[in-house]
Amino acid sequence: MWRDQSAIGRDAETGGYTRGGWTPTEREATTWFLDQCATRGLAVESDGIGNLIAWWGSPDRPGVVTGSHLDSVIDGGAFDGPLGVVSALAAVDLLRAEGFTPSVPLGVGAFVEEEGSRFGMPCLGSRVAAGVLSADKALALTDRQGVTLAAALEAAGTDPAGVGPSPLLERMGTFVELHVEQGRGLTPPVGVASSIWPHGRYRFTFEGEANHAGTTLMEDRHDPMLTYAMTALAANKQARLAGARATFGRLSIEPNGTNAVPSRVIAWLDARAADTATLESLLAAITRQAVERAERDGTTVAVVPESVSPIVDFPAGLRDRLVGVLDGAPVLPTGAGHDAGVFSAAGIPTAMLFVRNPTGISHSPAEFAEEDDCLAGVEALAAVLKDLAQ
Amino acid sequence: MWRDQSAIGRDAETGGYTRGGWTPTEREATTWFLDQCATRGLAVESDGIGNLIAWWGSPDRPGVVTGSHLDSVIDGGAFDGPLGVVSALAAVDLLRAEGFTPSVPLGVGAFVEEEGSRFGMPCLGSRVAAGVLSADKALALTDRQGVTLAAALEAAGTDPAGVGPSPLLERMGTFVELHVEQGRGLTPPVGVASSIWPHGRYRFTFEGEANHAGTTLMEDRHDPMLTYAMTALAANKQARLAGARATFGRLSIEPNGTNAVPSRVIAWLDARAADTATLESLLAAITRQAVERAERDGTTVAVVPESVSPIVDFPAGLRDRLVGVLDGAPVLPTGAGHDAGVFSAAGIPTAMLFVRNPTGISHSPAEFAEEDDCLAGVEALAAVLKDLAQ
Repeated sequence: MWRDQSAIGRDAETGGYTRGGWTPTEREATTWFLDQCATRGLAVESDGIGNLIAWWGSPDRPGVVTGSHLDSVIDGGAFDGPLGVVSALAAVDLLRAEGFTPSVPLGVGAFVEEEGSRFGMPCLGSRVAAGVLSADKALALTDRQGVTLAAALEAAGTDPAGVGPSPLLERMGTFVELHVEQGRGLTPPVGVASSIWPHGRYRFTFEGEANHAGTTLMEDRHDPMLTYAMTALAANKQARLAGARATFGRLSIEPNGTNAVPSRVIAWLDARAADTATLESLLAAITRQAVERAERDGTTVAVVPESVSPIVDFPAGLRDRLVGVLDGAPVLPTGAGHDAGVFSAAGIPTAMLFVRNPTGISHSPAEFAEEDDCLAGVEALAAVLKDLAQ
Repeated sequence: MWRDQSAIGRDAETGGYTRGGWTPTEREATTWFLDQCATRGLAVESDGIGNLIAWWGSPDRPGVVTGSHLDSVIDGGAFDGPLGVVSALAAVDLLRAEGFTPSVPLGVGAFVEEEGSRFGMPCLGSRVAAGVLSADKALALTDRQGVTLAAALEAAGTDPAGVGPSPLLERMGTFVELHVEQGRGLTPPVGVASSIWPHGRYRFTFEGEANHAGTTLMEDRHDPMLTYAMTALAANKQARLAGARATFGRLSIEPNGTNAVPSRVIAWLDARAADTATLESLLAAITRQAVERAERDGTTVAVVPESVSPIVDFPAGLRDRLVGVLDGAPVLPTGAGHDAGVFSAAGIPTAMLFVRNPTGISHSPAEFAEEDDCLAGVEALAAVLKDLAQ
């Protein structure tokens, strides 16, 4: 399964994956998933936006669902998402081989556009399913080519009218997501999540005045690139001071010409911290320094939050049950967002398992997990599902 | 003429122009030029890359050529280039209305891709014509979509085999380019150029390690965006100290995703100074600070010159002759590159006239010149042509 799935859409040059929602590579991975479910006789249900759950046993009552996502960031790694889907299918195989029969329906889920790499909204599928993002707002989201989600769905043969809160969630009695760990926080092969850090994406728009790069005196310029550059350095420093994370990884520049002072730099800040107060003071400190520099540069800066996710504390009872099943596996928080966080916030008892990441590298072609650790993850997931569905 | 020409390709939202070489808007402006020449009975000659000269009188011996370019930077102004072409045609009209008959052929030129906004090479048409850029190198240049110049020429119906040193130059006995001034260096409406500052375009490639924006400790990162940001601030400071110009106006970021530390930031430095030694020490200072910061960030930086143009001192005799004709018009240098600089370096006696720019803004939709100043420019150009072609 791993070999077949991880061949889909692998960039020959970088070794990375670019599977934005409803793109050909992501659709091919989804087709692979549907084939795997059909081979196993799992009946697949889809909701309006395209989240999928494949059921072992009739979903006539709330069951135990596991799974993750098949999409990726731009030029991302092989494990973030697909490891949880492949491990879920492998855990079903393992339980069946053991002759286990679940007493409640057992579902394998694949949720769409978790990374938000195409439409800019992380956990798009789970947010819409949980009703925390309205259909109107979701359908109006646009990708970098200006294509709306509504148009992308239509192009994929999906009626946008069906997008909205998902009946699938009523059948998710418990949700468990297995995921590759994305830092270096895990010493043994498998751990259990305690919480997801609060996380914000903020759009900083720096505006100045386009001008000639050769003839305009430095003193006469209103160059928004300088304001941005100082803000990027300030964000890094403030995040270090706060023990938090702040990243400017995406920019859009106008006119983006070599011989013109830019008129506008749009920069997206990804910020995360262990608690909401730290996140808010981090954003305030970065914004204050940006505004001060803008005054000096004769530019302006406007900050718009594009998405802000509060802290997710996974329920302690379920977490401790997993730790018990897994012989005292370590408990750790994560700075990464997950569909599990959205489902947990929506009131579904939710837990996460992490598989060790030896380098801590993620969202990169260099993302990696040892095969033995992945197999330990499958066994741990199978044990947890057996305990929850017995 | 001005009203008709300046309507071509004007962006309704910004008021700016994006006329890269061989794009539909630039082709439309070229068609407009050919129509104007035909109306006046001027016989147009084209060379292999598409530079045009329209002749008043048979070009059977070296003549006096005036003109400029019709392409623009991305979202540029109306005057940079077209003012020189329109003024050249208007000067011909004025001389004919006066009953003047030139004793040598008088040509109106329009030279292709002067800004380099599509293929990254400023003065592309004049460099190829003068033989300072080989046909092989020119034809292999690519635009941002990966289209080669060879393919763009073929798409425009031009055989790339014809690209090379231009026979047109043999008939340019003298060249005079009228251009809007691009700083605030001119007090009366019209001035004469002394020199063009040396000018370099350098590609800075900052390489680091892509990683997850949420889970990667700030201390574990190798973030090339930080190295770039410090370099952009250093470039600004060093240029101020040197009385020179340094601009980072164009970037390319990989993967350019909100939730990923970038793996690579490519940034183009446009640097200019009054003399070569200052330009070289400016580049050295910026590079040194970039390398030092890269060591701190655990990133790398590589600097590649994409084009470096030495200082152009226009010939003093011709310059003084223009000053005499124009009753002591002021003489001033410019930080902007021009086809006139390429032709002058190629040994053609060359001069430039500048029309006052009240704000100094250029390479921007806000670029402006007063109508009266433009008319004064036409009269000055006509007087100069009359003197040179009498």
